[in-house]
Amino acid sequence: MRKNSGWGGGQALARAKHRAIITLTTDFGTSDHYVASMKGAILSIAPDVNLVDVTHDIEPQNLMQAAFVLRQAWPAFPPETIHVVVVDPTVGSDRRILAARYNGRTVLAPDNGVISLVHRDGQVEAIHVIEQRNLFAASVSATFHGRDIFAPVAARLAGGMPLADVGPATDRITTFAIPHPHPHLDGSIEGEVIYVDTFGNLVTNLTPQELKRTSPTRNSWNVTLRDRHIGPVRHTYADVPAGEPLALIGSTGWLEIAVNGGSAADALDAVAGATVLIR
Amino acid sequence: MRKNSGWGGGQALARAKHRAIITLTTDFGTSDHYVASMKGAILSIAPDVNLVDVTHDIEPQNLMQAAFVLRQAWPAFPPETIHVVVVDPTVGSDRRILAARYNGRTVLAPDNGVISLVHRDGQVEAIHVIEQRNLFAASVSATFHGRDIFAPVAARLAGGMPLADVGPATDRITTFAIPHPHPHLDGSIEGEVIYVDTFGNLVTNLTPQELKRTSPTRNSWNVTLRDRHIGPVRHTYADVPAGEPLALIGSTGWLEIAVNGGSAADALDAVAGATVLIR
Amino acid sequence: MRKNSGWGGGQALARAKHRAIITLTTDFGTSDHYVASMKGAILSIAPDVNLVDVTHDIEPQNLMQAAFVLRQAWPAFPPETIHVVVVDPTVGSDRRILAARYNGRTVLAPDNGVISLVHRDGQVEAIHVIEQRNLFAASVSATFHGRDIFAPVAARLAGGMPLADVGPATDRITTFAIPHPHPHLDGSIEGEVIYVDTFGNLVTNLTPQELKRTSPTRNSWNVTLRDRHIGPVRHTYADVPAGEPLALIGSTGWLEIAVNGGSAADALDAVAGATVLIR
Repeated sequence: MRKNSGWGGGQALARAKHRAIITLTTDFGTSDHYVASMKGAILSIAPDVNLVDVTHDIEPQNLMQAAFVLRQAWPAFPPETIHVVVVDPTVGSDRRILAARYNGRTVLAPDNGVISLVHRDGQVEAIHVIEQRNLFAASVSATFHGRDIFAPVAARLAGGMPLADVGPATDRITTFAIPHPHPHLDGSIEGEVIYVDTFGNLVTNLTPQELKRTSPTRNSWNVTLRDRHIGPVRHTYADVPAGEPLALIGSTGWLEIAVNGGSAADALDAVAGATVLIR
Repeated sequence: MRKNSGWGGGQALARAKHRAIITLTTDFGTSDHYVASMKGAILSIAPDVNLVDVTHDIEPQNLMQAAFVLRQAWPAFPPETIHVVVVDPTVGSDRRILAARYNGRTVLAPDNGVISLVHRDGQVEAIHVIEQRNLFAASVSATFHGRDIFAPVAARLAGGMPLADVGPATDRITTFAIPHPHPHLDGSIEGEVIYVDTFGNLVTNLTPQELKRTSPTRNSWNVTLRDRHIGPVRHTYADVPAGEPLALIGSTGWLEIAVNGGSAADALDAVAGATVLIR
Repeated sequence: MRKNSGWGGGQALARAKHRAIITLTTDFGTSDHYVASMKGAILSIAPDVNLVDVTHDIEPQNLMQAAFVLRQAWPAFPPETIHVVVVDPTVGSDRRILAARYNGRTVLAPDNGVISLVHRDGQVEAIHVIEQRNLFAASVSATFHGRDIFAPVAARLAGGMPLADVGPATDRITTFAIPHPHPHLDGSIEGEVIYVDTFGNLVTNLTPQELKRTSPTRNSWNVTLRDRHIGPVRHTYADVPAGEPLALIGSTGWLEIAVNGGSAADALDAVAGATVLIR
């Protein structure tokens, strides 16, 4: 595998051997030409780049959803991957566009908070503001910076351009308040659902580390969703009968509430924000 | 970047360096195996081609929608890109299949009008009818020419086969009547909505060039959608309060009617064909 | 084009020249990070692999649908393609994961029957059980074997690892009862609808070979769907007026019932399992 050797000569060598990867996360949907326009703009500059769709089905302007999906996709790809996020309700305003580097991966995103979870959990290496207009499309539309700014800048970074060339460094970025679990006086911990996936699994903001504060032994954790008792933290879906709810440490590494063979969101009538209590 | 050096030696050199690009635009949806079957057929002949989905969500048999999306995707990709369009309600009849070259890009499409907007706006270099059966799959199904004709022909063109090898040249193709803006006696111009995107933005057939006929100064343009007054042509969404409609020159380069943070199609109850008047 | 020369030196040469292909068929949907997580895991090991989505829209846990789509996609791709199928309702239980080779292509799938149609129609070369834990992710989640087992194993196979390295050979796999057409005493044959596509076409389990048992001449075949008379087997949609139902040998090679310009599923109110009779 290629070594994560930073921006030095080893990286240049790696680039010569492997195709650079650019991932795309947007709320553009897949019915229009918008995603293809971005890809065409990237391939016009970097024809050998490997384009990977994360999703284009972010709910329009749902920044928390985008932040979560980016948080999950970001470490799954190899070092030097460039993650482009265009969920950008204030496109055309004076909001900034960031090019930030965490754990050897680069993220391009509007400075509107979508980077919040990566910023919280990642090891920041550099954050720059994309300002060098000579990197942009010759004519920049007011409403489609994905094609006219994000795409050409990502393509040039994929081609080896140093991150600092996009514009000045910054150390102040927009992050939104991420709901944190908080302990109760009785030793229990209260968290909440922060994401609901396609299957209706309820992903919470509770990690095994936090659960261990209530008790070091996994078997004694006891989960309640609002006023519904879910039970102990199981290993996998099949640990309960079909149709029954359960709690488990999900593939995200965080506590999830699921229903074996069904949708917890439907069965438990729960949405993001629902309270989860661990005793 | 690679130079658009036509079909000569320079192009052969470019091919050796970069992977050829084939884009796909269909009404196949993404639930079945159809798109994958086309991709498999292409990769069986040209294993290193770079496949890019434009969309597979064209409404079944909506030729105007396909023509618009193709018109947008076509110039966004680098020269030598091959755009394959399979929206083909009369597959299996004697409708022809075209391989046409506009501005250095190749388009493969049924001769049913989907090429109309590219044909109107592009610089035509050659149009051939795909007839050479030895280029097709060994067995051609009556209902899936995407896999059995479009895919193998596109793959061979991507491999460097000259366009003329697909079959005879033609200068008569099917185009449908494209709604043209027309001037009124009072100096105003009447156009119409020709496309509604996922966000509910209403794309019209009015270009800045045509708007300038009513008045050379952008600030004096005044937009009405049916009997609803929209106001002047703005720069971007944030120029009006959230929830308010506005007109702007969209990323397509054409006049669009949008709602800041919302859907103009919903808020204004408008569909393709709605009248737009500029005073 | 590359020759299907098996696992010998010719194949090694082919690998050096062309990018290996991995296809993905899942019920993950496209809204979450799950598909991207699998792709990231593959590209982290095999950065030059060519990833092709078959579909991620399999209905959750619909094994018959997945089996059908896999059956269609599997032969469409060139030899050495690796098809990864993750429709896996019992993930985390002790169900096995198979790596099987049919007609020069490799299929990775849970041993839950999704491989049934390929197994019935393909030429089996080898079947192994994936057990070598050193091939898996360092930490294997209980609920996302797609990312933690299928992806790294597929990536290593794409890099040239012999199939036998995944684990022991097996000759017993799970297949589900595939509905077979059966002859009636009066010489007619009864089959059934086994798949309904996006367009509402009804794909049956009847092949031309079986139809020939009722009569060697295609013109005399007469199709009935439940109690609705459909008529003879046509060549293509346009052989009947718009809106009318017809039977034809579809692009799958199997008998299909369609409506010209419409949806047979809607017009005839039919779903998978509906009886089809040929006289």
